[in-house]
Amino acid sequence: MQKILVLNSGSSSLKYQLFSVEGDKYEVIAKGLADRIGIDGSYVTIKLSDDDKITENVALPTHKEAIQAVLTLLLRGALKSIDELSGVGHRVVAGGEYFKESALVTDRVIEQVDELSILAPLHNPAAAMGLRAMKSLLPNVKQVVVFDTAFHQTMKKAAYLYPLPIEQYEQHKIRRYGAHGTSHFYVAREAAKIIGKQGKFITCHIGNGASISAVENGQCVDTSMGFTPLAGVCMGTRSGDIDPYIPLHIMKTQGKSIDEMNRMLNKESGMLGLCGYSDNRDVEAAIAKGDEKAIIANEVYIHDILRFIGSYIAVLGGVDAIIFTAGVGENAPALRKALCERLSYLGIELDEEANKKRGETVEISKVGSKVRVFVIPTNEELVIAQDTVRLIA
Amino acid sequence: MQKILVLNSGSSSLKYQLFSVEGDKYEVIAKGLADRIGIDGSYVTIKLSDDDKITENVALPTHKEAIQAVLTLLLRGALKSIDELSGVGHRVVAGGEYFKESALVTDRVIEQVDELSILAPLHNPAAAMGLRAMKSLLPNVKQVVVFDTAFHQTMKKAAYLYPLPIEQYEQHKIRRYGAHGTSHFYVAREAAKIIGKQGKFITCHIGNGASISAVENGQCVDTSMGFTPLAGVCMGTRSGDIDPYIPLHIMKTQGKSIDEMNRMLNKESGMLGLCGYSDNRDVEAAIAKGDEKAIIANEVYIHDILRFIGSYIAVLGGVDAIIFTAGVGENAPALRKALCERLSYLGIELDEEANKKRGETVEISKVGSKVRVFVIPTNEELVIAQDTVRLIA
Repeated sequence: MQKILVLNSGSSSLKYQLFSVEGDKYEVIAKGLADRIGIDGSYVTIKLSDDDKITENVALPTHKEAIQAVLTLLLRGALKSIDELSGVGHRVVAGGEYFKESALVTDRVIEQVDELSILAPLHNPAAAMGLRAMKSLLPNVKQVVVFDTAFHQTMKKAAYLYPLPIEQYEQHKIRRYGAHGTSHFYVAREAAKIIGKQGKFITCHIGNGASISAVENGQCVDTSMGFTPLAGVCMGTRSGDIDPYIPLHIMKTQGKSIDEMNRMLNKESGMLGLCGYSDNRDVEAAIAKGDEKAIIANEVYIHDILRFIGSYIAVLGGVDAIIFTAGVGENAPALRKALCERLSYLGIELDEEANKKRGETVEISKVGSKVRVFVIPTNEELVIAQDTVRLIA
Repeated sequence: MQKILVLNSGSSSLKYQLFSVEGDKYEVIAKGLADRIGIDGSYVTIKLSDDDKITENVALPTHKEAIQAVLTLLLRGALKSIDELSGVGHRVVAGGEYFKESALVTDRVIEQVDELSILAPLHNPAAAMGLRAMKSLLPNVKQVVVFDTAFHQTMKKAAYLYPLPIEQYEQHKIRRYGAHGTSHFYVAREAAKIIGKQGKFITCHIGNGASISAVENGQCVDTSMGFTPLAGVCMGTRSGDIDPYIPLHIMKTQGKSIDEMNRMLNKESGMLGLCGYSDNRDVEAAIAKGDEKAIIANEVYIHDILRFIGSYIAVLGGVDAIIFTAGVGENAPALRKALCERLSYLGIELDEEANKKRGETVEISKVGSKVRVFVIPTNEELVIAQDTVRLIA
């Protein structure tokens, strides 16, 4: 039996899950988070079961204290001693072109994660801090980094190069990297298991952030997020792709700074910008009340997702299965129904009863549907734990 | 018999065609241009036939002198007197939301064209100048404006609203307007004539600028150009859609101004940026020599066009015909072949012989192909002449 700790460091938070691993069996035996790192009012939580949850207020000036606090909580029951830990897996947002797959942590790897902060300024510095902190606290435990971008490294230049002056790629590393790679990988793998073979899959990771990928034989062929996670489909608060002249026009005619423009596109756009609600549940509630703006925002949302699904069918030259996952993808039957109706020209027939289920893997197309449609709850932590076990072996 | 003059005013040029109209029969009896308006070395040309061409150097300080020079040339043979002109049709790039169709010119219309300069700063001011000049020179001739955006005004909000703060649309008029509308309209109309009925068409206007439209029953449902003609697919020198954070990132990290960034995206990107050649003929020649950058740029180009065709198939819920037009669309058999091969999953079968023809309307899919594919040389001037005849009646 192995115990594997999975860490997900944000700029001011640190989420974790502790897995117990027995052969192919992975069980979460504790999870929680350290929050408000470097901010007043910081705290740490642990959940061992539905009846056994602890939240403690504790000063967390840096990620090092946060990791220390998490380890302290784990040692009160989930772990007898730190030596029980076989490995630690870290989620890292940007792996750039350095990392085509998960890697064992070395000093050089930490340097590279730090160096890639230019590509994920909110995430990679925190991950590097977490890596350094963990290494100094547990110098003898093997650690692994798992990148959100690694799954997309199989894309060809045709898919990842932007039509910009080529030095923007060669010198400045501007290209499509994608995001949510671990999630796209996981649901594509699970779909192949259910179907019994690989094929042409379109994976729709739709949460507050959203990305859609074209996956063929388990490899990513194209994806909607780009250089950053602003790109692609309309999201909760992000614009997704727009005419790239628009930011320049708004800055010029409305006197916005680069940072103000960035905030508008990342924080004040998407569904929030169109109708005042970023959360799909709020949008649905507003639609039920006849809120005209919410109705139109939802039409934009569906139209935009449909555009990307369609584009990836062409890129793949057909489609065998479409998979929905993440917060909205797993929990919005109305959205899935609307999309499947628009996609009925493909021979998709929706199973309305199956489409109502929540929280489980379910096939929502009818038996015999020409294209199969699944809801598969994503599980990035499991993939990180599995990669960690594989690499520390 | 009517004589109709069609004018296309650019910022420093003025193209024209003189039509003779007899019932449904439209014949071009003269064409040419006035170039370098407001610049040293200005000149005016007329072509009455392949053997009868004139170029004259003449000072053209403003569009008024340019129009005067064109009329003077026309009066040397193509027209006996100005009174022969039944009407003048003007191409205007941006009609905003004011103009859902072509309109007779009034003082108010000229004001609106001027007001819409914010949407087409390089084009609308020139068009307004041309309109005012023509009105003062020929006060008694009826004039008509035909807008590049009008055909796209049938798009629904789901297609034309950007996921931005809603006041960017409501107050600042930022939305998808599209471009090349007259061309998309023309080739969709011609395709419906050939097929014998309307249907779900994807029209690919691919020139140095390029846009792709989804057309259903003669109406535009979606289009790839956006708020400005920078958006959509990779073009000769324009980037098309990219992660909208990229311009902000480049400005911030490379110290570019808004104007420098705009120049990069509009003039130094696209195929030119990727491989050094903006003209598809140069790209093809470079590919033939094994130029690696040109090969990859071409793969990006094909992949990007394919994405848009695919997205519009999903938006339309299927496709009956795909139409290629404009400089590249009409003259690049290799590009059409590559796209049709990638689209073979739709049941498209390319007729390789037909695909080699140039300069004529031709069906390039084989008889029985599930989706029909056409090359239709565009003719925006004809549509402008026809709209002029219709509106002055």
